[in-house]
Amino acid sequence: MPAPSIEFWFDFASNYSYLSAMRIDREAAARGIAVTWKPFLLGPVFQELGWTTSPFVLQKRKGAYVWRDMTRLCIKHGLPAWRVPSEFPRPSLLPARVAVAARDEPWMHDFCRRVFERNFVEDRGIHQPDDVAEVLNALGQPADAWLTRAQHDDTKARLRTQTEEAMQRGLFGAPSFLVGDELFWGNDRLDDALGWTP
Amino acid sequence: MPAPSIEFWFDFASNYSYLSAMRIDREAAARGIAVTWKPFLLGPVFQELGWTTSPFVLQKRKGAYVWRDMTRLCIKHGLPAWRVPSEFPRPSLLPARVAVAARDEPWMHDFCRRVFERNFVEDRGIHQPDDVAEVLNALGQPADAWLTRAQHDDTKARLRTQTEEAMQRGLFGAPSFLVGDELFWGNDRLDDALGWTP
Repeated sequence: MPAPSIEFWFDFASNYSYLSAMRIDREAAARGIAVTWKPFLLGPVFQELGWTTSPFVLQKRKGAYVWRDMTRLCIKHGLPAWRVPSEFPRPSLLPARVAVAARDEPWMHDFCRRVFERNFVEDRGIHQPDDVAEVLNALGQPADAWLTRAQHDDTKARLRTQTEEAMQRGLFGAPSFLVGDELFWGNDRLDDALGWTP
Repeated sequence: MPAPSIEFWFDFASNYSYLSAMRIDREAAARGIAVTWKPFLLGPVFQELGWTTSPFVLQKRKGAYVWRDMTRLCIKHGLPAWRVPSEFPRPSLLPARVAVAARDEPWMHDFCRRVFERNFVEDRGIHQPDDVAEVLNALGQPADAWLTRAQHDDTKARLRTQTEEAMQRGLFGAPSFLVGDELFWGNDRLDDALGWTP
């Protein structure tokens, strides 16, 4: 029997992905489950639906609700007090490329969590080279080398492929979780996904 | 201090409303909370967003996911095995009008649950007079009298007003729950709503 594992699909621009990113490794480890972090881009998913940006921006009442919901959920999950980002959704292409390039590095999950915190706790940019370099430097990693690697054609192609794979496997939003081919959508489903027995 | 109470806003066409309808009275009673059932129509909410029908129909991958999610949630909540309705979303205007007309009747919640079960357990129509009459008869109520009352101008206006009120108070989907002005959206938030202390 293979060791239990779960795939965590996310976009750095997604506030509900932030909630899952901050707890999934801890909660999975408590159950002996391995987590594979899979960054992808929501942009092509939204484009396919004819949306020019996040539904939280396009649908005013839903957007207002989501910020209130985040306030409550940050309290519930023991996270810093929620504040609405001054830019939403923030472009997330560059950190996603770095995360894809660094997928086998032991600091990859830390990198992702720090990008999320930068976006949703510190309300700072995440898509300029300087933004990403700051995160890499804080982790003791050579920023220039990773930024260069992030812009390699191989890395670009890999992120594109990963986004296409997301759609082919049924994803339509983030965060999403896959246990084998069993799909769970939303931070609200993380516990069900971790408890899923194929 | 007023007795704690919660408003349950729903549309008979909404499958996630069905999940909440089947458990809200029991779970609220266990906490000493009174529930006011508020039928409204999702149609005008979707129209405002430019949608001609449910997002579960318009967004194919999301729709496929939702049926799988319902299968899992019906098991989780101890409900009959889920089957996809042969018509979705079913028009819900007539039962909504009856529910509004019967809002002060002791059998109103039973009526609503039976309409939901007809739609989502029995896969039968809910919007023809004969459909609604069958539900009323099963409850020992005079079907003709209630169907007539459902079509009164007063009843029609009341449902319209209730739907407008829903939007004015920030609702954008169903089920939704209001504890005072605190809004919770989705069957996933029912427990949080019942536990909310203003």
